Amino acid sequence: MMTKVLFFLMAPLAIWGHDLMPVPAKIALGQGRLRIDGNFRVELTGYREARLEEAAARLTENMSRSTGIPMRPGASPAALLVHCERASAAVQAAREDESYRLVVTPQQARLDAANPLGVLRGMETFLQMVDLDAGGFGVTAAEIADQPRFQWRGLMLDVARHWMPLDAVKRTLDGMAAVKLNVFHWHLSDNQGFRVESQRFPKLAGMGSDGHYFTQEQVREVIAYARGRGIRVIPEFDMPGHATAWFVGYPELASGPGPYTIEREWGVFDPAMDPTREETYKFLDTFIGEMAALFPDAYFHIGGDEVNGKQWDANPRIQEFKRAHGWTNKEKSNEELQAYFTRRVQTLVRKHGKKMIGWDEVLTPDLPRDVLVQSWRGQKSLAAAARQGVDGILSHGYYLDLMYSAADHYAADPLGDGASDLNEEQRQRILGGEAAIWSEYVTPELLDARVWPRMAAIAERLWSRQDVTDVADMYRRLDVVSRELEWLGLTHVSQYEKMLERLADGGPVAPVRTLAEVVEGVKEYAREEVLKYTSFTPLNRLVDTARPESQVARQFAVLVEARDVAKMREWLTRWRDNDARLAPVEASSELLADDAEISRELSAVAAAGLQALDYIQAGQHAPAEWTERQTALLEQAKKPKGVLLLSVEPPVRKLVELAK
Amino acid sequence: MMTKVLFFLMAPLAIWGHDLMPVPAKIALGQGRLRIDGNFRVELTGYREARLEEAAARLTENMSRSTGIPMRPGASPAALLVHCERASAAVQAAREDESYRLVVTPQQARLDAANPLGVLRGMETFLQMVDLDAGGFGVTAAEIADQPRFQWRGLMLDVARHWMPLDAVKRTLDGMAAVKLNVFHWHLSDNQGFRVESQRFPKLAGMGSDGHYFTQEQVREVIAYARGRGIRVIPEFDMPGHATAWFVGYPELASGPGPYTIEREWGVFDPAMDPTREETYKFLDTFIGEMAALFPDAYFHIGGDEVNGKQWDANPRIQEFKRAHGWTNKEKSNEELQAYFTRRVQTLVRKHGKKMIGWDEVLTPDLPRDVLVQSWRGQKSLAAAARQGVDGILSHGYYLDLMYSAADHYAADPLGDGASDLNEEQRQRILGGEAAIWSEYVTPELLDARVWPRMAAIAERLWSRQDVTDVADMYRRLDVVSRELEWLGLTHVSQYEKMLERLADGGPVAPVRTLAEVVEGVKEYAREEVLKYTSFTPLNRLVDTARPESQVARQFAVLVEARDVAKMREWLTRWRDNDARLAPVEASSELLADDAEISRELSAVAAAGLQALDYIQAGQHAPAEWTERQTALLEQAKKPKGVLLLSVEPPVRKLVELAK
Repeated sequence: MMTKVLFFLMAPLAIWGHDLMPVPAKIALGQGRLRIDGNFRVELTGYREARLEEAAARLTENMSRSTGIPMRPGASPAALLVHCERASAAVQAAREDESYRLVVTPQQARLDAANPLGVLRGMETFLQMVDLDAGGFGVTAAEIADQPRFQWRGLMLDVARHWMPLDAVKRTLDGMAAVKLNVFHWHLSDNQGFRVESQRFPKLAGMGSDGHYFTQEQVREVIAYARGRGIRVIPEFDMPGHATAWFVGYPELASGPGPYTIEREWGVFDPAMDPTREETYKFLDTFIGEMAALFPDAYFHIGGDEVNGKQWDANPRIQEFKRAHGWTNKEKSNEELQAYFTRRVQTLVRKHGKKMIGWDEVLTPDLPRDVLVQSWRGQKSLAAAARQGVDGILSHGYYLDLMYSAADHYAADPLGDGASDLNEEQRQRILGGEAAIWSEYVTPELLDARVWPRMAAIAERLWSRQDVTDVADMYRRLDVVSRELEWLGLTHVSQYEKMLERLADGGPVAPVRTLAEVVEGVKEYAREEVLKYTSFTPLNRLVDTARPESQVARQFAVLVEARDVAKMREWLTRWRDNDARLAPVEASSELLADDAEISRELSAVAAAGLQALDYIQAGQHAPAEWTERQTALLEQAKKPKGVLLLSVEPPVRKLVELAK
Repeated sequence: MMTKVLFFLMAPLAIWGHDLMPVPAKIALGQGRLRIDGNFRVELTGYREARLEEAAARLTENMSRSTGIPMRPGASPAALLVHCERASAAVQAAREDESYRLVVTPQQARLDAANPLGVLRGMETFLQMVDLDAGGFGVTAAEIADQPRFQWRGLMLDVARHWMPLDAVKRTLDGMAAVKLNVFHWHLSDNQGFRVESQRFPKLAGMGSDGHYFTQEQVREVIAYARGRGIRVIPEFDMPGHATAWFVGYPELASGPGPYTIEREWGVFDPAMDPTREETYKFLDTFIGEMAALFPDAYFHIGGDEVNGKQWDANPRIQEFKRAHGWTNKEKSNEELQAYFTRRVQTLVRKHGKKMIGWDEVLTPDLPRDVLVQSWRGQKSLAAAARQGVDGILSHGYYLDLMYSAADHYAADPLGDGASDLNEEQRQRILGGEAAIWSEYVTPELLDARVWPRMAAIAERLWSRQDVTDVADMYRRLDVVSRELEWLGLTHVSQYEKMLERLADGGPVAPVRTLAEVVEGVKEYAREEVLKYTSFTPLNRLVDTARPESQVARQFAVLVEARDVAKMREWLTRWRDNDARLAPVEASSELLADDAEISRELSAVAAAGLQALDYIQAGQHAPAEWTERQTALLEQAKKPKGVLLLSVEPPVRKLVELAK
């Protein structure tokens, strides 16, 4: 709830006293509240277009849904007066004005923006400001002047490894709009699937997708949906590697002999396009032409990552081609060959009116500079590009599938680390960042829980001032935005509940929840080392249900810091006793079969924590021998149990140390 | 989970040992399980049609969603072999064969049915049989021979008082199919809204709906969606009363001078169609003709309920008409006038090829017998109709909006009470029943929680044998089906969680939940006596959030019966302490402002219960003076607090009595 004291704040102080996420550039809270009731109405003035009318209707509907207040038809005075100066670009561009000014008084709110993009951003802010107090729903008076720090704030969604249907994509766009993201990067092809209809090459999706692909009509629907929310849509067709799914229908594109089938496993595979055949470029010319017409955005992503070169090495004709070009260094010749391919593809992309994007690997010394590099390698790689005069965006640090905490992502800054010593002109080349959700371990039912709410922390990093870095306040607001996202239709909370129910299968859910709340999946790529996963492996176990980041562990760590013994004892007791409660549920649910060890460990660790509390409360030093035993126990608990980590180990260790 | 003992059971014993709802007519559980994994596949043999293909795909998809198992493409052996004999009627009719036979062995399941309706019912049974045990997901071997007891098993949905959008209708149909209901009765017009497009009379929806109506294309979509699930769609256009929304666009239809506006309040209103003008019938002839073509079902509902006659009494021309017809008895003349109207309308309905349905009031001695009476009055009224040779269905006892318990609804039998002494021929005239959800206090967000899971208990009453009456087992299975319905997309659980969050507005949800779990809204029509509600009154308070029937109160009553002192103490302590925990949340949420009294009362009642336990455990008799004071407290607690009831009062009273 917003406090009602009048003061003018600049970030980072601005982050106190309101629940907005991302934090606006400038905010001053005022006195009194604008009441929200059934007479709420938006009035549009100035430049008008259908997108604005729809946004106003959507704002009203979203507000009605989250408050439960039905809005009356009819002509009450407008509660929110919107003024838009002029149209934005016909096709949303990277460098557009997204600023807005929002002034809320107890009588009325007024939103001013140069163009519809600013209006859309300001409306999201207004919606976030609606809250409840003892007087009812309302918006605390405030003056906000806001614009983004970075012009490129995106999310890459991999719909290739696991198919994500249309409604999942739309939900994702709803969430993106809510936190002011503006680029939807659609990873549409990979070894495991080719996910968009090509009319010129129908066997791409026809044979490469198990029937799970977007029709061109659906693509247009998504683009319109995104544009309505101020979001650009950039397609990615990964080449020359990550392309097995293309070869199922068109094996002649590959560098090795076919036939090919859709890959069902994860990892880097050998098949790669043949960069030496002119037919490859003829195919790509036609294909890129078709897709460039379908996707209006100025940018076009060609992937370009992770070619292992094995097919190239095994093909005598390709070997000969390399020799003929003088690429004879065994270490580098495949890089040189890929650079050749990238230049050729860039020419095609340019021919069809687009600017090329590729992952780090595409950046080679002789590539023309009209390219944008998306860096999975980090700020240093990005800085190197910027120094070469190449635009870049950061994705390193923003891979949501690696199961890092929101705080970890929040700490990654496109202009931080290896990019912090750039000069102003070079800094301008770093356009922003994109989170990425690779879908090896993500199904449609898991998508929201893997993206949200952590995505909102990244969105704030990309929108808000660089000095907005208070992690505790970020988490406080993340809880709020997480609830708001559920009202928009995201399912990261509700689906979690259903998955817990599934694990318990009619048995008591409480002990399953208690365990799920304090475990996390292993981080980075550790999961694939434990078990052989394929695209048909069910993702319905505890590791899938558990949140990427344990909220309870975080909260417990706060209790330890605060020495809140009573609450610690409550938690520790529940954890100690949980294994006995869980046992009968485990016995009748195969989905819980792998979790016995970590459940026992939770009990043991909690018992150690309780003993530590006993020593602390008694004012005694724990005997060295006891400490030694507990430390050994905690060392053991620190290790992954299969694919699971016990996330309360660090704060309990802290307790054991305090008891020394 | 199904037990694995081989025994052959007939209902009611059949209700033990499985989770099916409705209970099938015959079930014998076998030994072993059919494993459900990613190779699950349905194969159709015999008669084929698109509806069956879609049903097979839907079954696979629903199973995949609820288990979290992705299904592999490709030709594994079919796990479920379906054989369908022949087509069902082109337009689903009331008297069609819905029987099926389902045999599950550890190797394969086989479903046989005479027509697609039986296949659809059998597939729902198979889906309900999927569960999880220590070996994974599977279906316990069984032989089932099943058919419904009643041919007419419906739900009436009022989309007039509160608008219910298309997705809410579709969700409802999904739920209906899951529990084998087969009639969707769509209450499309009332004083508060005319909800379907008429091309002949565009002002009906154009002026009578605030823009919230179904286009004819959407109607066709709903009909196709329902047919795909074996559900008939019957429209209701209520006349001559309950018709104010018609008069907004066409005031000449009314018996009193206009102009008219959409009603915003609840109750019975004066406006009624003018039964004396031939223009009225000309209008209705055209309108019914248009709607009869749009809705293929053989039945057409004309409402006919609750005409208060005031406009008729106030209109001299209508008075004169009655005199001319010799209807001069002041008490009965309006009934006679309505009977005249009903006969005229019935002629029109028949002319357009339909059979008329009306509420009790339409049944008058000289009405031709080709009518079906829907009884809100009860079995006696239905029996009277049956004795006159008129078909009937029961809705009395099945009004879901009256906030009765599932057990109450479960006890109502179309052939019970006043209909129990009919002869066989008369019994055949009672076709079944329809639940009804009138929407005065139901918004789209509340719809699922007001219909489900209680609807499933009524569905069982209408499908299963009359002697399936074990209430405790019904509740056990209702919990299971409730979870299954959420997997289908119903939101009665997830929306409840969101509404609790809304009430707490970022504060702790736990004390709000504790209170919400033990209160119920007042029953029947008591709510309107407490507060003046309109269609714009937000339904977002505790009374709306609370379930119609407190599960916790029911469970606590079981603990009292079982004398489970430890668990009772746990609950009572939580309730006693809840008021203090809730107070700070109440102080900052206007939505909780009315709940202070009942929260305090919960604490007081729980304290009484704890003291009673103390006496019981100490083996002492409570002093008479103490008993007297607690009884007075409980008398007070029994009374509604505004619109809320404290549902744990009866079991705590039991404890106080035990302590005597």
